[in-house]
Amino acid sequence: RKRSAGAHFVADKGNHRHFMEKEIHEQPEVIAHTLSHYVDFSAGCTREGISTIAFDRIERLTVSACGTAYIAGLVGKYLFERFARLPVDVDTASEFRYREPPLSPAGAALFISQSGETADTLASLRYCRSEGLASEALVNVGDSSIAREADGFLPTLAGPEIGVASTKAFTCQIAVLAALALSAAVRRGTITRKEETRLVRTLSEVPRLMRDTLAASEADIRSLAQEISHYRHALYLGRGTSFPLALEGALKLKEISYIHAEGYAAGELKHGPIALIDETMPVVVIAPYDHVFSKTISNMQEVAARGGRIILITDRQGAAAATTLETMRTILLPDTDPLVTPLIFALPLQLMAYHTAVFMGTDVDQPRNLAKSVTVE
Amino acid sequence: RKRSAGAHFVADKGNHRHFMEKEIHEQPEVIAHTLSHYVDFSAGCTREGISTIAFDRIERLTVSACGTAYIAGLVGKYLFERFARLPVDVDTASEFRYREPPLSPAGAALFISQSGETADTLASLRYCRSEGLASEALVNVGDSSIAREADGFLPTLAGPEIGVASTKAFTCQIAVLAALALSAAVRRGTITRKEETRLVRTLSEVPRLMRDTLAASEADIRSLAQEISHYRHALYLGRGTSFPLALEGALKLKEISYIHAEGYAAGELKHGPIALIDETMPVVVIAPYDHVFSKTISNMQEVAARGGRIILITDRQGAAAATTLETMRTILLPDTDPLVTPLIFALPLQLMAYHTAVFMGTDVDQPRNLAKSVTVE
Repeated sequence: RKRSAGAHFVADKGNHRHFMEKEIHEQPEVIAHTLSHYVDFSAGCTREGISTIAFDRIERLTVSACGTAYIAGLVGKYLFERFARLPVDVDTASEFRYREPPLSPAGAALFISQSGETADTLASLRYCRSEGLASEALVNVGDSSIAREADGFLPTLAGPEIGVASTKAFTCQIAVLAALALSAAVRRGTITRKEETRLVRTLSEVPRLMRDTLAASEADIRSLAQEISHYRHALYLGRGTSFPLALEGALKLKEISYIHAEGYAAGELKHGPIALIDETMPVVVIAPYDHVFSKTISNMQEVAARGGRIILITDRQGAAAATTLETMRTILLPDTDPLVTPLIFALPLQLMAYHTAVFMGTDVDQPRNLAKSVTVE
Repeated sequence: RKRSAGAHFVADKGNHRHFMEKEIHEQPEVIAHTLSHYVDFSAGCTREGISTIAFDRIERLTVSACGTAYIAGLVGKYLFERFARLPVDVDTASEFRYREPPLSPAGAALFISQSGETADTLASLRYCRSEGLASEALVNVGDSSIAREADGFLPTLAGPEIGVASTKAFTCQIAVLAALALSAAVRRGTITRKEETRLVRTLSEVPRLMRDTLAASEADIRSLAQEISHYRHALYLGRGTSFPLALEGALKLKEISYIHAEGYAAGELKHGPIALIDETMPVVVIAPYDHVFSKTISNMQEVAARGGRIILITDRQGAAAATTLETMRTILLPDTDPLVTPLIFALPLQLMAYHTAVFMGTDVDQPRNLAKSVTVE
């Protein structure tokens, strides 16, 4: 009685070669739809009652998820801690469920899953419920076990996702987490109403920024992907919310191109991975012009000094500030507010993985060994 | 005015080809020394007053560290949560310091560093102190900034470590964390005095188990290392405390052999990395016979079904239970109590990295691009 996301509708790739390509390009539209469910753009505020979690009273949020959804949870951690000053633990569901960690009754738990049927995430939800914790599901399929069993349900509203490598479900998860972090910030009194209005306006610009980014960068990334397809390794680096994005960029490339890509916090580079750097391992660095930009760029100067080939993903301000850094390629994105940066910077990572896989001739929508929904352990 | 661990003594490799080899073989002796500082073996209990942290009153422990010390912190998290039911957050110091996370005043913070001079870890310590949190340093060099600035100091007592890739400092960090978790468990009333006595006896057996393990497995691992040296990739997998060990095994191989090894929680395999598996990427699986053993082995059956080459590191009970699993090699370790399993299972990972690097002819003690102590960001 399991139902896949696309069970009741006729899947159609439209003009696209693969579902993944279609789903990447659907993002401006679905993100607009998702955000409007959680945010009232005309009133300039987040909607009341979007979550059953008492964000003004809880002391801590515990997130359990697997794969890409786990990475979305990590992005959410940074947003919640920064805007709402709410501590967030994020754990791989397969580790969480068997560790049976001590939980604070003053906390709440969030479970993220595209399908809503991920076995380990469902088991984590059941553990938290048995411990008496308030629970909420951030899930794309409403009629799913996780959505049904949690106390609350936050729909992702990404629509059916057919490509095994998640794209639009991932950004929709982040969009909901961003809206939720804002809502929590208002309820916890860590941002003013005026700041809320400004950030809601920032969210409203995301669909247009996504459309512009896809249009402006795809041709460039396609030619870069042809180069990447000749490598067997890649390292993805970032700091702050760009650290989980580095994990996601590497995971996408792994999943569909079978290139051994690994994501790392840029600050950990010197604690080991820099030993791997040579001309056979390109380094993709995700560096928006934010409060850690100069730290990341200084790490990259060391990579460059060791003969590493750098693919720099940055924005206009970043590119202007990093003119001395020698790169193999620079991908230029629009300047963004930190609340929405991960939503925009996710796009070139998806395109890079997609076009690399196309050049390599892999089965993009059905990569080897992978299933869309991991319903067994 | 920075002092390295070995500044005041004449470094001597003895009969060993490299400091790293010497330091690996010193572990039975230094672990005995370290443990006896924290545990009273004759009385069968942990020593009073070994830590300034009020483990009976705090609600949470926050750990910040980099590289191998971060991985030791992750092992500690599992031990503290299991034995003392104390929630532990572990964070990469370079992320922690710039995220400036909200901290609970009912918590305490622990900083782990071999040198005591790691720049990001020191900055994390200063942030926690400025937030009014009680702090303690788990450091190998007593006359170091982190040891001096923290409220409390827990010496690792590993002696000077010269090899850039940490071995004995790592296991000494874990030994202290194991003793501390026991001490916390007694003070929090989560284990009985009788159970404490049994676990102290378990700790007392570690030096002998380490000696036996090194003697019994080294020749076998040396021949395995020759095979590994022909690969360009490796995946390390584990669950529970074997998950951080997988990270550590991969980090060691990266650091000194420059093979692109990556560690993963075994439960995440199906969420992406299994797409990488083919005959060019051996899979090292760390699977003691514990409560998650059968889950890990079932993940490995899938790896085997996809043509993956498996190096199984297990114990006698595990080997007896996994007879149907086809492996490239099985490394057999003694049966151990979960409190000390990571101390024993770390050894074959160190030996594997060491001998692989020797076969590849790299500069084992001074690998390219790496420094022993990362005193700048």
